[in-house]
Amino acid sequence: MTRLGHVSLVGAGPGDADLLTRRAIARLRAADLVLYDALVDERALRFARRAQRFFVGKRAGRPALSQQAINALMIRAARRGRRIVRLKGGDPFVFGRGGEEALALQQAGISWDVVPGVTSASAAAAAAAIPVTHRGVASALLVVSGHDEAAFRTAIAGVRPRSSTLVVLMGLKRSAAIAWALVDAGWPRLTPAAIVVDAWTDRQQLWRGTLDELAADSVTLENAGAGTIVIGDVVALGIEATARIGSAVPPVKVSSHV
Amino acid sequence: MTRLGHVSLVGAGPGDADLLTRRAIARLRAADLVLYDALVDERALRFARRAQRFFVGKRAGRPALSQQAINALMIRAARRGRRIVRLKGGDPFVFGRGGEEALALQQAGISWDVVPGVTSASAAAAAAAIPVTHRGVASALLVVSGHDEAAFRTAIAGVRPRSSTLVVLMGLKRSAAIAWALVDAGWPRLTPAAIVVDAWTDRQQLWRGTLDELAADSVTLENAGAGTIVIGDVVALGIEATARIGSAVPPVKVSSHV
Repeated sequence: MTRLGHVSLVGAGPGDADLLTRRAIARLRAADLVLYDALVDERALRFARRAQRFFVGKRAGRPALSQQAINALMIRAARRGRRIVRLKGGDPFVFGRGGEEALALQQAGISWDVVPGVTSASAAAAAAAIPVTHRGVASALLVVSGHDEAAFRTAIAGVRPRSSTLVVLMGLKRSAAIAWALVDAGWPRLTPAAIVVDAWTDRQQLWRGTLDELAADSVTLENAGAGTIVIGDVVALGIEATARIGSAVPPVKVSSHV
Repeated sequence: MTRLGHVSLVGAGPGDADLLTRRAIARLRAADLVLYDALVDERALRFARRAQRFFVGKRAGRPALSQQAINALMIRAARRGRRIVRLKGGDPFVFGRGGEEALALQQAGISWDVVPGVTSASAAAAAAAIPVTHRGVASALLVVSGHDEAAFRTAIAGVRPRSSTLVVLMGLKRSAAIAWALVDAGWPRLTPAAIVVDAWTDRQQLWRGTLDELAADSVTLENAGAGTIVIGDVVALGIEATARIGSAVPPVKVSSHV
């Protein structure tokens, strides 16, 4: 009798294995095969004791496995009765291409599920003690991807300047261009802005300033890895996280203008 | 020698204790006092074995403790050296008033931290196999609160119709009015819409239809508790979650027009 294979699309959260959910850990423990991305904390993989592990993301400029190749790998392994975890940074269904993978699995008749994760869309800001919504300050949150110039301009074209907190994922390398696009679209130059790099890791870095400073390319962050840009008045609420207990959470490193 | 108190603002995730993070559980285990809201799965409280537990949310129409009273309670307990967990459904910093609590604690000189949670802003849709972003379909996510008519109209006034996936939290009881506000603002009447009630619990219910049907108040959901409205083309991608393994995840109940 053959066992039916199954694929779990699992969110690994924003960077610290402590922010994995119980269900994510259960799926990793039961896995035969784990396919993981660049943004995943490698400590998360320790839970997958029984599993083969394949890195399928981009690293050091070398290209990732194509989406098609990842889909084919998952489908083939599932047909052999394997339990597969597709482990993604953040949440699989928030700019994670999880929907595409789910559709491919469904079309191939493979059993699958999704385990939602803590998304950087809200949690990267939280690592810098910035709430993405705040009564009387921001009552809407807009999350966009910054990796493509045209797509970014289209996304913000439909939004009244400063009407919501804007969180830009995957925009770190284009932060000056992103700030210019916002200024072009009418966002005030003094709108507060922050960049959180490697949120919830011991490499975390924080920059705070204004859209103007971001546009001037005055941000200096060392060896920046994954970064999230947060734009809006919530950045300037003046909340500072204090010492944390229980788990090892690093102090926030600040290279700030504010 | 007195021990210093500490407050952790902890996200409990969207409804299932399995979606708590490891850090949330560690904080609950170490807690002396837990203050929790209506949207928290009571099974989450089992981890707080040593703690006194206080329910501070709204129940059966009776008012919640005021925000000011909750703040005062946390501050007083922290000054007595207690470890307090303020447990909130979803994520404390996404429409959770966590920022207000953090400011109050900071102003009182109380040590605090935040433990981000899986937010319903993305995870409620995921419970219905709906990705909030999808390449070529939706490249932006707008999250708003639906509890106040005027605030909702202001939030959507700044947004071009159908330019992003719209997720409305706390809008279940006003779903028809919300749909009307969107139609008034120029959103096409046939824009796909879904409501996910009690996501990731065994009481989960799903409704799918169009903005038009939502406006006509044709949605019938039994004893609806917490609900999330998802509006946009991602609702109609045709993805269906299949059987889940490992943990007890209920089948999705559908009362659907699609």
